[in-house]
Parts: sequence; C-alpha cells; structure tokens
Amino acid sequence: MFKTTLFQLFSAAISVSALSSSIPWEKNGTFGHETLSITRKNNGSILRLNIQNGPINLYDAKLGTDMTTLLNSLIPSNIPSNAKYPPPKVIVFSSDNPDFWMGHYDLELLIPGRTNLTTDETNALFANAVATARLLSTLPTIFIAEINGHATGSGNEFLVQCDMAFAGPNAVVGSMEVAVGGLQGNGGIQFLVRKLGMAKAAEYLLAATSIGAQEAADMGWVNRAYGSAKELRKAVDALTYRLSILPAGALNGTKTAIRAFGPNVGQSDADVATILRLFPEEIPLLPRFLELTDNQTANAFELGALRDIRDVEKAEGLV
Amino acid sequence: MFKTTLFQLFSAAISVSALSSSIPWEKNGTFGHETLSITRKNNGSILRLNIQNGPINLYDAKLGTDMTTLLNSLIPSNIPSNAKYPPPKVIVFSSDNPDFWMGHYDLELLIPGRTNLTTDETNALFANAVATARLLSTLPTIFIAEINGHATGSGNEFLVQCDMAFAGPNAVVGSMEVAVGGLQGNGGIQFLVRKLGMAKAAEYLLAATSIGAQEAADMGWVNRAYGSAKELRKAVDALTYRLSILPAGALNGTKTAIRAFGPNVGQSDADVATILRLFPEEIPLLPRFLELTDNQTANAFELGALRDIRDVEKAEGLV
Amino acid sequence: MFKTTLFQLFSAAISVSALSSSIPWEKNGTFGHETLSITRKNNGSILRLNIQNGPINLYDAKLGTDMTTLLNSLIPSNIPSNAKYPPPKVIVFSSDNPDFWMGHYDLELLIPGRTNLTTDETNALFANAVATARLLSTLPTIFIAEINGHATGSGNEFLVQCDMAFAGPNAVVGSMEVAVGGLQGNGGIQFLVRKLGMAKAAEYLLAATSIGAQEAADMGWVNRAYGSAKELRKAVDALTYRLSILPAGALNGTKTAIRAFGPNVGQSDADVATILRLFPEEIPLLPRFLELTDNQTANAFELGALRDIRDVEKAEGLV
Repeated sequence: MFKTTLFQLFSAAISVSALSSSIPWEKNGTFGHETLSITRKNNGSILRLNIQNGPINLYDAKLGTDMTTLLNSLIPSNIPSNAKYPPPKVIVFSSDNPDFWMGHYDLELLIPGRTNLTTDETNALFANAVATARLLSTLPTIFIAEINGHATGSGNEFLVQCDMAFAGPNAVVGSMEVAVGGLQGNGGIQFLVRKLGMAKAAEYLLAATSIGAQEAADMGWVNRAYGSAKELRKAVDALTYRLSILPAGALNGTKTAIRAFGPNVGQSDADVATILRLFPEEIPLLPRFLELTDNQTANAFELGALRDIRDVEKAEGLV
Repeated sequence: MFKTTLFQLFSAAISVSALSSSIPWEKNGTFGHETLSITRKNNGSILRLNIQNGPINLYDAKLGTDMTTLLNSLIPSNIPSNAKYPPPKVIVFSSDNPDFWMGHYDLELLIPGRTNLTTDETNALFANAVATARLLSTLPTIFIAEINGHATGSGNEFLVQCDMAFAGPNAVVGSMEVAVGGLQGNGGIQFLVRKLGMAKAAEYLLAATSIGAQEAADMGWVNRAYGSAKELRKAVDALTYRLSILPAGALNGTKTAIRAFGPNVGQSDADVATILRLFPEEIPLLPRFLELTDNQTANAFELGALRDIRDVEKAEGLV
Repeated sequence: MFKTTLFQLFSAAISVSALSSSIPWEKNGTFGHETLSITRKNNGSILRLNIQNGPINLYDAKLGTDMTTLLNSLIPSNIPSNAKYPPPKVIVFSSDNPDFWMGHYDLELLIPGRTNLTTDETNALFANAVATARLLSTLPTIFIAEINGHATGSGNEFLVQCDMAFAGPNAVVGSMEVAVGGLQGNGGIQFLVRKLGMAKAAEYLLAATSIGAQEAADMGWVNRAYGSAKELRKAVDALTYRLSILPAGALNGTKTAIRAFGPNVGQSDADVATILRLFPEEIPLLPRFLELTDNQTANAFELGALRDIRDVEKAEGLV
C-alpha cells in the first residue's frame, strides 16, 4: 500500500465506480452490505440513512462500499433515464449505535498482510473513500450529519464535509491520526480550518484530541448542540422538512456557491499525497493502536479517543 | 429578463454609470430620488446616509439609482478636478424606518410586464445593483452598516459587503431568496461564508431564514449588537469619529489588504450567472410572494421574513 | 528608506541569512544579542524561548537579528550534517517581562537619520523582519505564542503567524499601525482576517485598537485565555509535552496542510509593497509617537496602546 502513488490511487478508484448503476434512493431498506438503512420521507425528497456497522461503525470495506454505492447513485450523469423518482433534496446521516456515529478507517486495510484482500483491492477501497467524501461537496443533494456518538478519524473527515452537522449530548468529534503517524488528509484538515480557523484547527488536529458536543458547537465544528437525542432529532426533522419543500434549483445553486469557499482539488490531492508519503511511518504504529483498542472495539481507549493528554503518554509504543 | 446573459447584463450597467458626474458627498440633504439623505460630519470626513424608501425600504429603481449615483461618485477616477472637498473617509448607512434598514429587491422588476420599464431598463437596474454592491469592496471609503430594522434579501447582500455592521435590538438579518427559487448571489453567499463558515451559512441561506441582532452578533454575521438604538448610535459615532481623524492612506491600504480575502470577480460572476439561470424557475413564484406580502408592504408575513419554519409550509403555491 | 522597492528589500534580506550557520537550538542559554534565552525540554524536542529586550520588548535590530538567527537555523537546508540533535518539534515564545510579550518595531529604524545604521542596514533589518515572520508558516516546527503582556505592532504580526496562541490575564493584542499612518502588513492583516473574518478584523485594524485576553479568546484572536499566569503555563506545558511525543512527520504534514489556508506569497508581497508606499506619509508621524511614549518606554500611553478612543484625539500631531 505505501508504495501507492496518487496516480495509481485514482486509477484504482475508477474501476469500482461501476457499482453506481443501482438506484438505492428509490426504496426503503438496506442494500449492499447492510451498513446503511434507508428511510424515505416526504415522497423521497428526504432520506434518513442509519449507519450500522459493528461496535464502532468502522469505516471498513463494507461501509465504504455501501457509501460509495449510495453517493455514486446520486451523480446526475449516473441517474438512469428510467428512474421513477427525482433524487432526494436532503440526506441525513444518523446512527442508532449509542457510541459511534461513524468511526475511523479500518486500520487492518492499511497493514500489509492483515486482510485477505489484494493490494489492488485495498488501494481501491482507499481511493473510493477519498472520492466518496469529495462527492459530499459536489453532489446537488444537501447532506446533514446528525451525530450523537463518536465521529472520529474517517468519521470526522466525513462529518466536516457534510453541508451541516447537528450534535446530541453523546457526540464526540476529533482526530486521532497524528497519534498514529498520519493526518486527517481526506478533507478533515481543509474543511476544519475553514470552520475553526488555522490556530484552533492546529490545536485539535496536531494534538490528536477529541471534544464533546457543546464545545464543538461553541467553536463552529458543528452547527449546533442539543441537550437530548429527542431535541436533536426534532430540530433536524423540522429543518429537513423545510428544505424538502424548497425549490431544488435554488438549493443546488446556493450549495454550489457556498462550496466555492472549499479547498480546490489540487489542495485535496496534495493532502492525500502526504497521507501516502507518511504511510511507511504510520504502518508500524498501527498494530499497537489495534492492541490498545482490543482490535477496534468500543473499549475505554477507543471511547476515550485520546482525549486525555496522558493517554498518548501511557500508550507506549504507539508514538 | 430571464434570457439575459452575463455579458448583456454588464453591458447594460455601463450605460448608467455616467450618472456619477455629480458630487453628492459635498453637500447635506437628499439628491436624485430622495431615498438617501446625507448628513455631513467632521468637515465631511464622515457621511451619515439615512435610507428612506417607503414601508420596507424596497431596493427598487429609485433607491438603486440613488445608491449607484452615490457610490459611483466616490470612484477615484470619477472625482472631478474641481471638487472642493476630499471624499469622505467613512460612510454610515442607517435608516429611521422602524421596521426596515434595507429590504429586498423590487420583485416587480423581475416579472415581465409588471412595470412600465423596458427590458433594457430593468436589465440596467439589475446590473447596477450588482456593480454597486461590488463598489463597497473596492472603494477607498470605509462603509459601516448601522442596522436597527430588517436587512433581508438585497438588504442583506448589501449589509454583508459593508466593511463593518453594528446592530440594534430591532435588527433582523437574513435571506428569503431560496424560498422564491433564487439565491443570494449578489455577494450575499460569498461574504456570508467568510463570516459564518460554510456550514452555518448553509443553515441560514438554504432554509431561507432570518435571525435577530444578538444571534447575528454571536455568530459573526454583524460585528456587535447593542441593547438600544441610542447605544448603537453612540458606539457607531465614536468609532466613525476615531476613523475620521486617522490617515486616509493607512485606512485605504488596510481596507484593500483586508478585502483580498473576499471573493474574486470570477466567483462573483459565477453566482450572478446562477441567478440569471434560475430566473425562469423563480419568476412564477414571485406573484405569490407579492400576494403574501400585500404587494411589498411591512405586513406580518414580510416582517416575519419566513423566520418560522411553518411560514414556508403555509405559503402554498410559493414553493 | 521610503524609496526602497520590494525588489531592493528582498535583495537586502538575502545578505543577512548567512547568520544561520550556528545551531542555537542545540544548547540552553542565550545567543547573539541576548534577547532570546533558550530552555530545552524533553531532550530538546521542546524549546521555550524567553523574550527579553528592554522595557517594551522592542522589535529592534537586536531582537530582530536574534529571531532571524534562530528561525533560519531551523530551515531544513540550513541544518548541518553534523547536527547532534534533530530540530525541536515545538517552540514556545514567552516573556517574563510583566508588560510586554513582544512590542512594536523600532520606529527609529524607520526615521532617516535617527540611528547610526546605514540605509542598507535598516533595509536589511526590515527585510529580515518580513522574511522571518514568514518562516513561522513554512518551517516544520510548531510555534506556540504564550502571551501574558502586550503583543502589539510587530508583536501582533508575529503572534498571529504562530501556529497557536494562548493568553494570560495581562495579555493585550492589537495594532497601532493605522494611527501612525501605516498598516499591519507583515502578515498581521492576512492572518487576522482568517481568524476574525473581514468585518471584525476591520473594526480593530482600521481603528488601531487593542483588546484584552478574554475578548481576544472569545473572537478567535488567540486560542484560549487563562485566569492566571500559572494556569497558562501549565496548559501550554501539557500541550507541548503531548506534541513533543507525537511523530514529527505527522505533525509537519498536518501543519503544512493547515497552512495552505494562509495567504499566498503574492498577497504577502502586495501588503509589504503597500507598507513601502505609505512610508512617506508615516515617517512624519513617528516622532510624535516617540514623544508620546517617552521614546519607546512602557509609559501610560504605550501601555494604553490607543485602547481608548480619546487617546488618538488627544495625541495632537500624531494624526
């Protein structure tokens, strides 16, 4: 994996995008690997996607592939002429996992020999994670993150690229990448500096820390924090309903204009190139992280998400 | 109107800029269409402009033309060699209308056949609204919005492009454009994302909502909120006096450097192009908005400014 | 000085960079002009630099030269192959001066005939101040400002270009440049607009005002404010320790990605060019400022730092 160049990476991604021929947004229920359950609302103008993938909603081959399938199906040029319904105006991502909204990347995919997949397959999954997160900026659909659990690692990269994010009392946002030798390069850095400013983004990203909902709302990491899951859901439902009855063209045009403030593709590519460059330093640190988290379970270390400054110090061998 | 291209639009604007030969900032009193009254202070280094144009301070042909005349007169190359006074260092825009600081665009100018003006004339007015708002960024004068009423639609586009904005207890800022099928494309989006970040700008712009003074100050939509009109006036007067005795070159140089963070002309043009593209979708919705607001009066719907989420739902036919 | 062009300025800077052959970060103690004392921590992965240069920590020839020497020594291509230790991961700038963290530029260097230095020498010092501040963005080291005194003028330009800033109860941040006819062009404007937004940056920069720690933290000028010097130190020490045990490659890669949001060199150059253009207007105002501050001492005027709006008015002849 760590010999992969940017060119090879994006070549790999193309081969998987053929998955997009289905129209998952036209029906309720799960699809593919069953990590995303769709509930259609208001004649399908709103979709609520429930993320469910084991104890930490790991961003692994299953969740990654389902997410790619879903978002690719919304690319205007992929929508078949026989589609019965227009694509949704609004998509909400939430999870009934009490601990995690969306977790970090499957670290085993990064360690050579830890999976049965070939290098081409792990490369394709990584490339698709990058390409899929970028779709959040360019698709005409409005994406809302309704988080009431951890959004860390890949989960945070995904969160900050949604159009909006609303948090409940159990929400935790943050990055652990620097602590394992990498960086939040798949959008996490470029979108966070635009939310918090460079100095506050530096404080959290460099130190690999995570924070709770209210602090995140106070500094603009999420739009707003609510005191209970019920209030959070009610507010998101009211907002999405309002959006769903507004004209699609105006919603799309406004989103496109807002997104002009985002990073350009060159900057995104540069960050992904840095991730690839750092892989050789990162890979030796990953087994220790897997050990500390009991192989990616919602144990105390994973849930603490390196929030306490001493967690890094105690994790000998991790750094 | 909706067949207008960007090229045609800006061609139209040029023909009106010859209005700028007067020197309105050299005297007290109103000029042109009497929608702007000038009070000169501190030897004319400060101008206070009172906006007065009917019940909702509609941005119509009269206010638009007066504003264009005023701002064009401040373009350095337009200042005649026989000018008696240097141009003002600071201009404050305020209004003694209790409900509105500056309202939305005259919707009748957008509906073919609703006015006696020719298409060329309505095109020129629209083009001048765009060109005039852009002058707020490029003129050497410092522009301060002192708002204690609604700044919605065009009013908000104007507000966010001033150098600073201070709000009193009756201030309301926001956008209703998406609700009528358009977008806050004349600067409103590009300047708001730089104030609030993309996600918070999305929350308010996409849902077409408005908010009050304190919430606006808390998130950076305006610089500061004051508890009374008197406190607001006192603070703005103190600040403008201080600015007026500081060296013009340093003020201008600092403003220019600050404005480098603003959108480039290409992005501004792209947003205006989207407005023009969306006109065919927008025009059919406008008559219903005019009906709901009793043809642009300060009625409950106009003053509510779609603040309540149910307002959109109730306004059947609007969306 | 005021005839200097940008080309001449940066030609001047090059001749001084040869100072960088020493390795000041390999030992404790002071070096050069004794304005910076180094304390090495955690095997040299953290350096704490104490700034000490007279009553107002004036950014003069001594402090400027020491700072240039220090930061040039950290440029990867300047690190000699026989270096015993890797460069520090983190550098903290603090001061035990109770009034000043870092003060403004030595105004006497800007007034022809006020120093014994040649024009070439004063040009080189100015060019180095520009080049040195830019290194804060590009060096792989993480720079933290721990301020518990004034950071005004050059001090503020330096502060806002550090990766992070934490403030104690005596911290004061701000700009006095416009009041003496200049602008915070050496990074101060471009970095401040990214922290505060354009309108809030305009409010403080145009009016040449300064503010205290808590207000600065509330608006994002600094990362956080602490109630006592002891709490401030404790928090910075905990953060720097954590950073010092994290992998250098991940820290550097993340910093580089964050800094992509900063101004490009062209914009920085444009601001410096404006400073040079304004020098003829600024120089006549400087003697009055020197008089009001009793020739750059920590007197009431210097410590008030033009915070009160009446200070400018009272300072007849300054503006």
